[in-house]
Amino acid sequence: MMPAVFAGNSEHADLLLALFIMLVAAKLMAEIFERINQPAVVGEILAGIIIGPGVLGWVQPSYIIKVFAEIGVILLLFNVGLEIRPISIVRVGKRAMLVGVLGIVLPFVAGYGVSRLWGGGEIEAMFIGAALVATSVGITARVLGSLGLLNRSTSRVILGAAVIDDILGLMILSVVSSVSHGSINYVAIIGTALTAVFFVIVVGAVGSRFFKKIAPAINRLKISKPFFKFGLILCLGLSFVALYIEVAAIIGAFLAGMALSEATENNPQMRGLTNGVMEFMVPFFLVNIGMQLDVKLFGDLSVVTYALAITVVAIAAKIIGCGLGAYRMGFKKAIQVGVGMVPRGEVGIVVAQIGIGLAVINQKAFAAVLFMAVATTLVAPPFIKMLGPKPKKAKEDIHISDVVTRIG
Amino acid sequence: MMPAVFAGNSEHADLLLALFIMLVAAKLMAEIFERINQPAVVGEILAGIIIGPGVLGWVQPSYIIKVFAEIGVILLLFNVGLEIRPISIVRVGKRAMLVGVLGIVLPFVAGYGVSRLWGGGEIEAMFIGAALVATSVGITARVLGSLGLLNRSTSRVILGAAVIDDILGLMILSVVSSVSHGSINYVAIIGTALTAVFFVIVVGAVGSRFFKKIAPAINRLKISKPFFKFGLILCLGLSFVALYIEVAAIIGAFLAGMALSEATENNPQMRGLTNGVMEFMVPFFLVNIGMQLDVKLFGDLSVVTYALAITVVAIAAKIIGCGLGAYRMGFKKAIQVGVGMVPRGEVGIVVAQIGIGLAVINQKAFAAVLFMAVATTLVAPPFIKMLGPKPKKAKEDIHISDVVTRIG
Repeated sequence: MMPAVFAGNSEHADLLLALFIMLVAAKLMAEIFERINQPAVVGEILAGIIIGPGVLGWVQPSYIIKVFAEIGVILLLFNVGLEIRPISIVRVGKRAMLVGVLGIVLPFVAGYGVSRLWGGGEIEAMFIGAALVATSVGITARVLGSLGLLNRSTSRVILGAAVIDDILGLMILSVVSSVSHGSINYVAIIGTALTAVFFVIVVGAVGSRFFKKIAPAINRLKISKPFFKFGLILCLGLSFVALYIEVAAIIGAFLAGMALSEATENNPQMRGLTNGVMEFMVPFFLVNIGMQLDVKLFGDLSVVTYALAITVVAIAAKIIGCGLGAYRMGFKKAIQVGVGMVPRGEVGIVVAQIGIGLAVINQKAFAAVLFMAVATTLVAPPFIKMLGPKPKKAKEDIHISDVVTRIG
Repeated sequence: MMPAVFAGNSEHADLLLALFIMLVAAKLMAEIFERINQPAVVGEILAGIIIGPGVLGWVQPSYIIKVFAEIGVILLLFNVGLEIRPISIVRVGKRAMLVGVLGIVLPFVAGYGVSRLWGGGEIEAMFIGAALVATSVGITARVLGSLGLLNRSTSRVILGAAVIDDILGLMILSVVSSVSHGSINYVAIIGTALTAVFFVIVVGAVGSRFFKKIAPAINRLKISKPFFKFGLILCLGLSFVALYIEVAAIIGAFLAGMALSEATENNPQMRGLTNGVMEFMVPFFLVNIGMQLDVKLFGDLSVVTYALAITVVAIAAKIIGCGLGAYRMGFKKAIQVGVGMVPRGEVGIVVAQIGIGLAVINQKAFAAVLFMAVATTLVAPPFIKMLGPKPKKAKEDIHISDVVTRIG
């Protein structure tokens, strides 16, 4: 008897099972966390730790799961962008810039310091610093979105700062990687940074007006759901462009969404469809983060203390750095911004993976950074929720996602 | 300068570009085909031929694209299932059975005959026959769905027959594959067939009542959009089970949708969200079919004549076989059912790939079957559209997909 040859899918069976397990575990944990009044995001990441290689080993991380995770976070940031008008980011521009810069400098210095204190070499310490730098805005965006808080001023500062943070973080990692190779190509690094800034400004500033203008033409297309399809194409296209000019794909996706936000604000059907795709893919992103953490690594007490030290420093440095940048908003809001920037998620993991690839950090440091990345991601959401104002469902805060949530 | 390491996505850039090109090409061709009043499906498959290795070579078939295609067709059949009540299939059960059986026997015999006439050996001829057997219901379902015709009696006969066709086709391929190995394990084959039948009956008969009963409990869950998420989980789960018991994954997805059809008929939000996921993924399924066809293979005239002969026979045998099975519905409806069963799509391609893997068919026969698979898929939709009654948008024919189509 041949194995399911007729269906031609025998190699897909394992994948379907993995996706099924990930989705069930994510939603089960999300349900539990909602019931104990904690953010579902945390539950879904914990689901990843539990079903991943560290505990039950039911699902192994794989290239294809990574792709699903990546498409998931791209669609998430696209959806977040759709709810943000570019002008609202421009209004907080200077503050976001300050938050972004200070939120980079302090964690880098602090990470460098801790690593040196624990006996790390010069280059290892620079890598640990770099790993502490970049906020993973996906997690924060997910929490803010599910609380209906995306249009608050703190949310806009966080999102703006995350874009700046990403560009600066890229520069730091480039420098650090170059140092570990023994040479630094400043021209190339500055060139990339300028391209990135140019990309963000062009899409952010011109995009919105342009798409608002051509929206009627898009809606006249004969294909079904034309605007939804146009949006998906723009999202994938700008994600690719962002990667191509060496920024994170999610920045492109976020800008694509933001550029369409005005053109689609009276198009709840488009928002509903986009929401459906996102909701399908995002759990793979969250579960995949959790799956990276192998809890067995922490049988070694020295790893545990190192991991805890790095994590505490990572949290404190981000809150203080970003909080300082936002201090003019008042103490409470400044702390909210700082907490919102805490999650490092998959970005910290990637930096650690590069460090191990270049053989400049060892397995213990890798495990510690991994722990930091997941822990900061788990710790922040409850605080974001706690610190956030009770979501009043005022008219301007109700978006299609909320509507669908309550009815569907 | 490191390539996009910071984003950790360098290996994803190529994939994002590929998905972007596939989506743009699909929607561009869909738009053109809608404008010349032809089914968008045909345009999207042609888009695949054009951007694929055969013509422009912009996108190469890959494992990951195949996975996207597979998830796409799974979600498509899940959506189709959502619009079909199980009772409506039971009502056409006997007729669907007859259509399914005759639609298997005639194409197999005809394919075997043509291959023998063209000088093929015994086993090669059996493989050609097997490749002509299985209808790819995805294409037909897509066309019927976009015309809003899923609730017509002809549509229900087609969908019911396609399930039966799939189970019988599986048996034939198992037998043929076993013969090429020199032995046949009848016990295993019959065991698989019985399991498949049991699965279909249990899910179809009991599922609907069960899910209608537990629907209120699902809706009381605390997670957002609980029914949508439950539906996705059931869809992936039953797709896996179907593969596991050696039926096509799409049968599981279709049954999952059908089992939820009654529970969700007053839940347009759920339908809208499901529709969003489907619309994102289905183009990859269609474009991927086109990408399999390398037009360069047809520089050889003997391949062309062989391919045309197989294609003509494949079309005629399905229409006559299925038409005979449905003759009691009247001539016009019988022809509609026959035409609806014509597309072989990815199923024919898979059989050919197995044949080449077992070295029982040669490159020419492979090219001819590939041509047949794509040609039958391209030829059928315009006829389905032409033969179908003008879609009156009567109340019972309006589903969320149509509503969203027109507004979104």
